[in-house]
Amino acid sequence: MLGIQSIASYLPKGRVDNLEQADRFETDREFVEQKIGVSSLPRFEEQDSVVSASVAAFSNLCAKESIDLAEIECVVLCTQNPDKGGLPHNSALVHAELGLPEDCACFDIGLGCSGYVYGLSVIQSFMAANGMKKGLLFTCDPYSRILDPEDKNTCLLFGDAASVTLISETPRYTLASAKFSTKGAGSEALQKNGSQLEMNGRAVFNFALQDVPKQIRRVLENAELKAEDIDLFLLHQGSRFMLENTIKRAGIPLEKAPIRLSETGNTVSSSIPLLLEKELGKSPGTILMSGFGVGLSWATAIYTQVK
Amino acid sequence: MLGIQSIASYLPKGRVDNLEQADRFETDREFVEQKIGVSSLPRFEEQDSVVSASVAAFSNLCAKESIDLAEIECVVLCTQNPDKGGLPHNSALVHAELGLPEDCACFDIGLGCSGYVYGLSVIQSFMAANGMKKGLLFTCDPYSRILDPEDKNTCLLFGDAASVTLISETPRYTLASAKFSTKGAGSEALQKNGSQLEMNGRAVFNFALQDVPKQIRRVLENAELKAEDIDLFLLHQGSRFMLENTIKRAGIPLEKAPIRLSETGNTVSSSIPLLLEKELGKSPGTILMSGFGVGLSWATAIYTQVK
Repeated sequence: MLGIQSIASYLPKGRVDNLEQADRFETDREFVEQKIGVSSLPRFEEQDSVVSASVAAFSNLCAKESIDLAEIECVVLCTQNPDKGGLPHNSALVHAELGLPEDCACFDIGLGCSGYVYGLSVIQSFMAANGMKKGLLFTCDPYSRILDPEDKNTCLLFGDAASVTLISETPRYTLASAKFSTKGAGSEALQKNGSQLEMNGRAVFNFALQDVPKQIRRVLENAELKAEDIDLFLLHQGSRFMLENTIKRAGIPLEKAPIRLSETGNTVSSSIPLLLEKELGKSPGTILMSGFGVGLSWATAIYTQVK
Repeated sequence: MLGIQSIASYLPKGRVDNLEQADRFETDREFVEQKIGVSSLPRFEEQDSVVSASVAAFSNLCAKESIDLAEIECVVLCTQNPDKGGLPHNSALVHAELGLPEDCACFDIGLGCSGYVYGLSVIQSFMAANGMKKGLLFTCDPYSRILDPEDKNTCLLFGDAASVTLISETPRYTLASAKFSTKGAGSEALQKNGSQLEMNGRAVFNFALQDVPKQIRRVLENAELKAEDIDLFLLHQGSRFMLENTIKRAGIPLEKAPIRLSETGNTVSSSIPLLLEKELGKSPGTILMSGFGVGLSWATAIYTQVK
């Protein structure tokens, strides 16, 4: 059975000091540190791109795993801010940079903060159906490209990052149960308008609090598990305030749900893999992941350790 | 087993007379009709969008099939020219327009001319893995949005269209065998540069002639079939000249491979579904589809009729 073998990430070297930003926006520093929960944001500089960040994440993966490029049969890349306007699909550009073989399926997925939970299921099911044994799932959604520099709500929140997950037949974690939901009628809460991002923070907050805990409970029920059976809850790192409230509402023990966005901000589809990379070393037995945002879209999945 | 139950399409009402375009570009009318093979091109007008065209295709589907919206569990939309710059994913916008239920997975795929063959496998495998029974695969890639009005090679070639395929547990056709390939190093042959499309027609032509027939032969071999066992070959309608040569090189009997782009042009990921919609009524037993282009990416699949 296919599953997650390994994971690596990349944070661009460029940094924005969020407390200096707070001053510029005449926003309380304590609010920025405690409520948003972000002290510093990684930001693409001119030389950075979805492709270069993805390739850098892959280099970091190669430092952990011995990977034979000739064995990679599938590349899926999740972004809504692709290089070259998404034509060609950025997975093909990564394919070129890595020098992957021709017998390799490549496609992009357009999803935001639910993208990693979706992406794992999409790549695993596509690979399994087509008899593929080794593949790479990338996430990289540089919101810095679409931030309105006058909008403090988004400028203080979003960071740039990339991740890559190695999917293989010798996994450490496999999918046990998942659920995917959509409320397209609410999509205006988080959308591009022209070239810039618009966010209705209140609407996103209400959505997270109302719909995410319900889905988490349903996925637990479907898997015949209780919250106490889960060792680790990896929730999309939207903002500290949103996370704390969502965790509480879902009845999740706080110590099982890391909140760790102080040095990354909200990195969209990369937020869960950034957490997962750090937590995998502790070998949690059962992991629940939940991503939610743009769409509105939310997805929850339980992964169990392969013994 | 999941598979193709039904299919419908939409061509926008707006039209460009390709012979008048030929005159404007000082290009021989015979060349346009015989070599490109396109007399008239459907083009989006101001009121058209990926979402509106997809919804119109769905209306046409509803004229053929009785569809209970509450049963739709998955929507996948393939485009590289989305509305709202792809944020949110356009499948979520279609979800809103159709009034689909919350328990519905929605995501976009970024692929060009190979998108339909990929998309079928992606949606079917994702749905099967997640126990979903009814889903919709949309294609809509309006190249009119990115045409350089001074570039006759692309202006005379690309048309706008949309399609929707109903995937269900009561299919008429199911997937027998498929192959997916990528040559990212050749992606510059077809790419967005800034806001405009750039195409190296010669490079795309060479790619189609060199790589597509090889893949078709491999898929036939893997399925232990010969060209004569296939009732219908649906090749991406790139241009008449490219198609005729690719068909010949692949050893496909001409009468089994429709060339039908005179009134549509090259509609990217919608070209194969446009053909399939017309051919399904004739109930071919075995269909081979092959899409190729942007990426460079090419994909071939064999579908067999459910008896």
